[in-house]
Amino acid sequence: MIYFITTNKGKWKEFQEEMNKYEMERISMEYPEIQADSLKEVALYGLQYLAKKIDGIFMIEDSGLFIKALKGFPGVYSSYVFKTIGNEGILKIMQGVEERKASFHSLIALYDGKEHFFEGICNGRIANEQRGKGGFGYDPIFIPNGCKKTFAEMETKEKNKYSHRGKAIGKLKNYLKTSNK
Amino acid sequence: MIYFITTNKGKWKEFQEEMNKYEMERISMEYPEIQADSLKEVALYGLQYLAKKIDGIFMIEDSGLFIKALKGFPGVYSSYVFKTIGNEGILKIMQGVEERKASFHSLIALYDGKEHFFEGICNGRIANEQRGKGGFGYDPIFIPNGCKKTFAEMETKEKNKYSHRGKAIGKLKNYLKTSNK
Repeated sequence: MIYFITTNKGKWKEFQEEMNKYEMERISMEYPEIQADSLKEVALYGLQYLAKKIDGIFMIEDSGLFIKALKGFPGVYSSYVFKTIGNEGILKIMQGVEERKASFHSLIALYDGKEHFFEGICNGRIANEQRGKGGFGYDPIFIPNGCKKTFAEMETKEKNKYSHRGKAIGKLKNYLKTSNK
Repeated sequence: MIYFITTNKGKWKEFQEEMNKYEMERISMEYPEIQADSLKEVALYGLQYLAKKIDGIFMIEDSGLFIKALKGFPGVYSSYVFKTIGNEGILKIMQGVEERKASFHSLIALYDGKEHFFEGICNGRIANEQRGKGGFGYDPIFIPNGCKKTFAEMETKEKNKYSHRGKAIGKLKNYLKTSNK
């Protein structure tokens, strides 16, 4: 049994679908997210906090959009930045900026007596304007490499081929398979 | 004796000057800053963390710039946002935005067996361009109410008349006086 600690129902649904061969249970519980430069630092603190409260194997997941020309902004603060300045704000900061490289990162942190991290990255670029009505968050302004459409212009199935979270889940599954959990 | 927990030498210097009647000592020590919507939530977590490690009376201070039209952005993440998109980024987001109200907040949190909070606020507006070479951080784009100059165009003495941190320190001193600490 693996516990997935999240208050986010959408995230839980995505994991259930991808990991239907594993016995999983959700615990809807808040844990402190610290201010730091990387998803890993944030996850490590959360993991150590939760290890004192939860018996058994558990995991958490966090993700963010890192824009190269903005030194990684909004990064680990992606959800806060989305709630405040949103895609409109990001596009304004990027006005006239030629370097448009960006990447979506997903980090799964698992605790089974030791800490394990599984990261998935999707490289791409920031669009010049919002396009598409699918997905959520920064999807309308993110175009994955090898593609002309934004994430918001894709069906879920197409998006999942590129998805950072899908890649992180793939790495997690490999670990679980080889460690016989 | 009051301990001031900060790794920031500039902040420590400002406090020493303003509080020279009190016996104070600096402890240069990191503590976790959580992701939250208000300075008070961040400070409360830090205070509770430090209360387990430090004997005696101690305090911490945090500050941020809250822009009304941006739902409080950059707020508690002011230092991260400054390091990444900077004043240039803020001015770009604010291009064409008529509502330019903003405020600087400083929050001092003191622990003497109980938690106490002292907040200082300086209301003002975001300038249309960077002006002045004094101060630091967001000073070149912040104009306090009743003024035409940005903080960066003022001498320290003039700036301190308006300053959020000065106001918070004033409240702290009142408390210390009445509680005979």
